[in-house]
Amino acid sequence: MTETATPRPATYTPTDRTVPTRSRERAAYDHEMVHAILDEGYVCHLGFVRDGAPVVLPTLYGRVGERLYVHGSTGSRPLRMAGQSDPGLQVCLTVTHVDGLVLARSAFHHSINYRSVVVHGVAHQVTDPQEKRQALDALVDHVVPGRSSDSRAANAKELAATSVLRLDLDEVSAKLRTGGPNDEPEDLGLPHWTGVLPVRTTYGAPVPADDLAPGIGVPDYLTTL
Amino acid sequence: MTETATPRPATYTPTDRTVPTRSRERAAYDHEMVHAILDEGYVCHLGFVRDGAPVVLPTLYGRVGERLYVHGSTGSRPLRMAGQSDPGLQVCLTVTHVDGLVLARSAFHHSINYRSVVVHGVAHQVTDPQEKRQALDALVDHVVPGRSSDSRAANAKELAATSVLRLDLDEVSAKLRTGGPNDEPEDLGLPHWTGVLPVRTTYGAPVPADDLAPGIGVPDYLTTL
Repeated sequence: MTETATPRPATYTPTDRTVPTRSRERAAYDHEMVHAILDEGYVCHLGFVRDGAPVVLPTLYGRVGERLYVHGSTGSRPLRMAGQSDPGLQVCLTVTHVDGLVLARSAFHHSINYRSVVVHGVAHQVTDPQEKRQALDALVDHVVPGRSSDSRAANAKELAATSVLRLDLDEVSAKLRTGGPNDEPEDLGLPHWTGVLPVRTTYGAPVPADDLAPGIGVPDYLTTL
Repeated sequence: MTETATPRPATYTPTDRTVPTRSRERAAYDHEMVHAILDEGYVCHLGFVRDGAPVVLPTLYGRVGERLYVHGSTGSRPLRMAGQSDPGLQVCLTVTHVDGLVLARSAFHHSINYRSVVVHGVAHQVTDPQEKRQALDALVDHVVPGRSSDSRAANAKELAATSVLRLDLDEVSAKLRTGGPNDEPEDLGLPHWTGVLPVRTTYGAPVPADDLAPGIGVPDYLTTL
């Protein structure tokens, strides 16, 4: 007798800090879901501790397999801090997409439909030149897929001026809410409109730079974004 | 001789941690700019320190004058932490809007047009019932202006199950990038398209809840969002 087992999707192992204290049913740990949420975005909020206090900064990120990369000037604070401390920099990197506004009949049950990923870990400076180049390409291609091969690659001076931090996807969770409002049974007769207002990110028409030479048209990868 | 002095706009006093180490020209401290960026959003990324490590969670916020409010279940971690510690909870609250993708000819000069606000401070539990109600109304109205008065207000049980944190706008900065790419002079002849792709948040058509009673139409405050 042969059985065709459905392979279990690869998952991140939950830890104390990736298991929410509330709404555990909203948490997910499978690679596929986490990667999909990460790949849909390009701005994360990077948290670290400075002088005992939290700092949260928006920054671009890219993913290559099970590694995330953020970058910045060698003079920027988190990158300096990661470089100064041998064991790396403890960070929390969070990516959030808002999908809808959930309007319940009661103020209390108002909510947001969203998908988020939270990554805990220690970020390390990337020193290998090849990994650094690959990370920078990933950062550009996260914002506009296909763009890194249609731009001038960083030269030695620019590479030297740029620090890249690597954060392994290891202690990771996704969290999401979908669906309509969850009103209390006794509120169902109230006269308030209830439902979901979908939220989307859209792109306007590309605005050419003032000094764009005539004859260089808008590339396909922009019109299909 | 009389002179009509133009009043200087009220500003937040810069501190060591609200003056960026890089791109200082992008930083702003005037109340008007900070309030405008905060009022355009409703999801922030709230950072705090737990067991020495940073945690960054997306959450809703509302503004009442010079105070921001976030809320959550009394069982949620940051709210429990703020309640347990008398001096409050050190937080960093960040709000970011992406306005455009900036495509330079060189990978290095790729960027994002954005507006962000970073608030540092100590969050305190709101214990005054009237302030708590006002904060919860502000949270709902931040997401959908006008909605708090068109929903059933929280009852005593719901109020008891909800914790609200207050964070004063005191150590605050805005940061923004606008405009086109800044390419190197020697790159101007490269054959790559260059310019800005505008990014916008838009709303889809409202999706009524399955159990919405017939005859309750979509309210005006949703169609004008």
